[in-house]
Amino acid sequence: MTTDSARAEPQPGAARDATRGGGDGATLTAAAVAHLVGGTLRDAGRGDVAVRRMATLDEAGPEDVSFYASARYAAAFAATRAGAVLVSPELADADGAPGAARIVVERPHEAMLRVLPALHRPAPRVPGIHPTAIVGRGVTLGDEVTVEPYAVLGDGATLGDRAWIGAHAVVGEGAAVGDDSRLFPHATLYAGTAVGRRVAVHAGARLGSDGFGYVFGDGAHQKIPHVGRCVVEDDVEIGANTTIDRGSVGDTVIGAGTKIDNLVHLGHNVRVGRLCLIMAQVGVSGSTVIGDGVILAGQAGLAGHITVGKGARIGGQAGVFGDVPDGATYSGYPARPHKEALRAQAMLFRLSTLGRALERLVARAGAAPDGPGGRP
Amino acid sequence: MTTDSARAEPQPGAARDATRGGGDGATLTAAAVAHLVGGTLRDAGRGDVAVRRMATLDEAGPEDVSFYASARYAAAFAATRAGAVLVSPELADADGAPGAARIVVERPHEAMLRVLPALHRPAPRVPGIHPTAIVGRGVTLGDEVTVEPYAVLGDGATLGDRAWIGAHAVVGEGAAVGDDSRLFPHATLYAGTAVGRRVAVHAGARLGSDGFGYVFGDGAHQKIPHVGRCVVEDDVEIGANTTIDRGSVGDTVIGAGTKIDNLVHLGHNVRVGRLCLIMAQVGVSGSTVIGDGVILAGQAGLAGHITVGKGARIGGQAGVFGDVPDGATYSGYPARPHKEALRAQAMLFRLSTLGRALERLVARAGAAPDGPGGRP
Amino acid sequence: MTTDSARAEPQPGAARDATRGGGDGATLTAAAVAHLVGGTLRDAGRGDVAVRRMATLDEAGPEDVSFYASARYAAAFAATRAGAVLVSPELADADGAPGAARIVVERPHEAMLRVLPALHRPAPRVPGIHPTAIVGRGVTLGDEVTVEPYAVLGDGATLGDRAWIGAHAVVGEGAAVGDDSRLFPHATLYAGTAVGRRVAVHAGARLGSDGFGYVFGDGAHQKIPHVGRCVVEDDVEIGANTTIDRGSVGDTVIGAGTKIDNLVHLGHNVRVGRLCLIMAQVGVSGSTVIGDGVILAGQAGLAGHITVGKGARIGGQAGVFGDVPDGATYSGYPARPHKEALRAQAMLFRLSTLGRALERLVARAGAAPDGPGGRP
Repeated sequence: MTTDSARAEPQPGAARDATRGGGDGATLTAAAVAHLVGGTLRDAGRGDVAVRRMATLDEAGPEDVSFYASARYAAAFAATRAGAVLVSPELADADGAPGAARIVVERPHEAMLRVLPALHRPAPRVPGIHPTAIVGRGVTLGDEVTVEPYAVLGDGATLGDRAWIGAHAVVGEGAAVGDDSRLFPHATLYAGTAVGRRVAVHAGARLGSDGFGYVFGDGAHQKIPHVGRCVVEDDVEIGANTTIDRGSVGDTVIGAGTKIDNLVHLGHNVRVGRLCLIMAQVGVSGSTVIGDGVILAGQAGLAGHITVGKGARIGGQAGVFGDVPDGATYSGYPARPHKEALRAQAMLFRLSTLGRALERLVARAGAAPDGPGGRP
Repeated sequence: MTTDSARAEPQPGAARDATRGGGDGATLTAAAVAHLVGGTLRDAGRGDVAVRRMATLDEAGPEDVSFYASARYAAAFAATRAGAVLVSPELADADGAPGAARIVVERPHEAMLRVLPALHRPAPRVPGIHPTAIVGRGVTLGDEVTVEPYAVLGDGATLGDRAWIGAHAVVGEGAAVGDDSRLFPHATLYAGTAVGRRVAVHAGARLGSDGFGYVFGDGAHQKIPHVGRCVVEDDVEIGANTTIDRGSVGDTVIGAGTKIDNLVHLGHNVRVGRLCLIMAQVGVSGSTVIGDGVILAGQAGLAGHITVGKGARIGGQAGVFGDVPDGATYSGYPARPHKEALRAQAMLFRLSTLGRALERLVARAGAAPDGPGGRP
Repeated sequence: MTTDSARAEPQPGAARDATRGGGDGATLTAAAVAHLVGGTLRDAGRGDVAVRRMATLDEAGPEDVSFYASARYAAAFAATRAGAVLVSPELADADGAPGAARIVVERPHEAMLRVLPALHRPAPRVPGIHPTAIVGRGVTLGDEVTVEPYAVLGDGATLGDRAWIGAHAVVGEGAAVGDDSRLFPHATLYAGTAVGRRVAVHAGARLGSDGFGYVFGDGAHQKIPHVGRCVVEDDVEIGANTTIDRGSVGDTVIGAGTKIDNLVHLGHNVRVGRLCLIMAQVGVSGSTVIGDGVILAGQAGLAGHITVGKGARIGGQAGVFGDVPDGATYSGYPARPHKEALRAQAMLFRLSTLGRALERLVARAGAAPDGPGGRP
């Protein structure tokens, strides 16, 4: 098999991931886990059971700690081979898990947040610039950056301290990546894109692509130049293959602490507030404004030039064509207040068996229909 | 024009595709085609007509074999210049295709499966590792692998025999690709992802990205570490730009023989059974379980933590918020049994002309409405 | 910090973008802007105000020209610090913009198309082939092409004059890119894909991937070979992470002048006419035919093997399961003529308060319901 110098050289963090997908050898006793999560051991005698990984009830073995927070999983709990289980108080005495040290804790899922990092340590980031990476003219590099193989940093790009640029990622001309931010492999920042600190951009996400703006003239769709930027504030996470267009005139802005799932589309000049959650495959058309703390459930679609008030929640697959008030919950197509949408749907199915009877009543009463059209 | 050694060197399968988009010079007589598909020549005298490619009725020429399986395409059949046509028995005597040798066969579309590989041979795969490919420390390579330009194999990655890694594809640290599997250009496997045998992963697909899981605390969305893997069993095909998240605790699993289209999103800890068909832009939220042989039509959305029973079919754009029984067909939003959904939709349009008349009836009868709300 | 020859070398247009996201130093007086757009200065005395960039009303400063075309933005207009503003005639006397030279023009948005290129000049394209680019055997290169770092041109590929291939883009074996066309970074053309002139393909778009076609037999989904191509005619723009499959037998074709947004899916053998607009996240199933000038709004889904007539408009999230006549406007699920869909939706919400009253009327009249089923 052929080999060459590039392959012989060390590769700083080549295609590393935030986790190894398993424990790294750290071991905790059940007592230590109970202490870590502020829980109590159901049977003090089992305090020295040792666990090395966290696993689901059905997959767990004697060296794993699992969790049981919903009676829905009673069967799995009954049969689990886990060495220890985080259980919520109301399930503390449930049958099952014969061999397990039970650790009773108020919110097992939040407790996981404390146990996981202790057992599963992310692979360390290795600073350095791989020799195959391309660094353009006038690039500014912070301290201890990691640049993986074949990454391309365009002219005038800026990387903050400890920035981590994945294999094949492209940082466009004049684009910036803040301190402690990471681009996963194949991410693309178009020219001028500005990414803040502690931001994660997953594989294949495209930030700063041209928006979809044309004016029809001379027998063609004339492209509106896009001279704005895509600006991502601190502590944002952006999912795989998500696309966020740059602004046409003015910027597209993603507020601090907002989390965006995979395959989301955010159009040009969209402004997303702080601490929003935008779930997979949501689409937001141009110039729409989304307030702080808004939740957009999967596949929801928002028209352009509308405003979604702060704290509003939009249901899955909802089609939103108008403004949504602060704190409101909307769903359905076209989106309405959630209760109205539910009632209308339920009524539709109840009436669906009465249709002919109602038509007979109307005919008998000699009431005129509303006019032409409407029938399939 | 500049040149360099890399470009002067042979490139094993550089950006090759499974097909050449056309015939490769092989030639079959109409008689040979009839024999190949177990069909019968309508006119034995035309058995030696020679064909070199398969084409649609409207595009076919004298050297092409086409197919005619639905009267919907009668006009195209009447005008086709094809040298030979696979026709279903009920259309064997249809007018048209004057110059064509008609080959009568029960299922023309299945017959295509036999003719296409004979006329259109895929470009051969050339084993070898391109000198620009990067192979990390401790990588295990099977026999006769193909690694195209600029592919990156992270530390500890494993490739099975005859595995084919496309240009720029990234195989993360500790990830595995089974025998005879292929990653098309720009595919990404995050660290620890496990891909089985005879799997095809199309361009830009992302396997093993972090799931969308956060717990709100201390004024921020706290990320739940994702320590599970993305596991793809044998004989799966995954479409372009599709994203499949790794598990948080426990794995995301795609069952053997399942086929997934483009731009699909499968969330963390989703479990897809065997032999499913998941069409373009479907989205499945975290921890949902999909049984064997399920069909999810395009743009359908499934909520998290639900179960879709084996053999169930979900209609296009359906929004599924609850469990679906084995073998059921659901559609609409929220998804219901398909017949109910159809009836309700039809009734809605019938009633839409009677609304005012019904309101008058209710008023006349002095019947009280159900209460406040409901009106826009 | 390590360095190497590759990084020391000039990089032709490395990761350049069509714009710099800001002005390039060009300066225009308000009088010159008025002349450029064929507008009139409201106050001739302000003709020599100088502007260097275009900006939104809220972001503009004294050196920026902005635009005001809708009373919706009256507050922003009142407070703007812009040095000049393009205003529509009906708003020419609106209060606000104290410091601004007002330029009255019929259509401010179209006027932008003239001002933007004058103030914001795209970065120049630098011809040349980066030494890290890989050019396969028998590649045909036009004059003055630009090939950015790590681009891969497969054997037998063709680039027209001034073609611009972005960093990491892959042009498959035998694929062609026409004169003045650009592939942005990470774009993929599968083997045999044909792209016309003046086409833009944005980051991560996949053209010519295999379609989703299988026939079930011998206990597995047997793949239908895809031997057709993906053909993109002149003046098309294709958004980021969009996927367009190749044809199975016969080609997938995108007509001249059509514009396609991000994350769109077009299945195998789809035929899109000329001058269509296809918005983000639309999905079109295999073999569907779309006429000239059709508009498909965001997240709309079209079934396979249907025809959408020329000039038709399909609403956002519409689910289209049958043919649509020329010039028609359809919306809803299943899609119907827009007026019927609107009426039905409105009626549903009006009736949702009358349901029980209607049931009482039916009961009182002794009218039989339509039969079993229907109720949830």
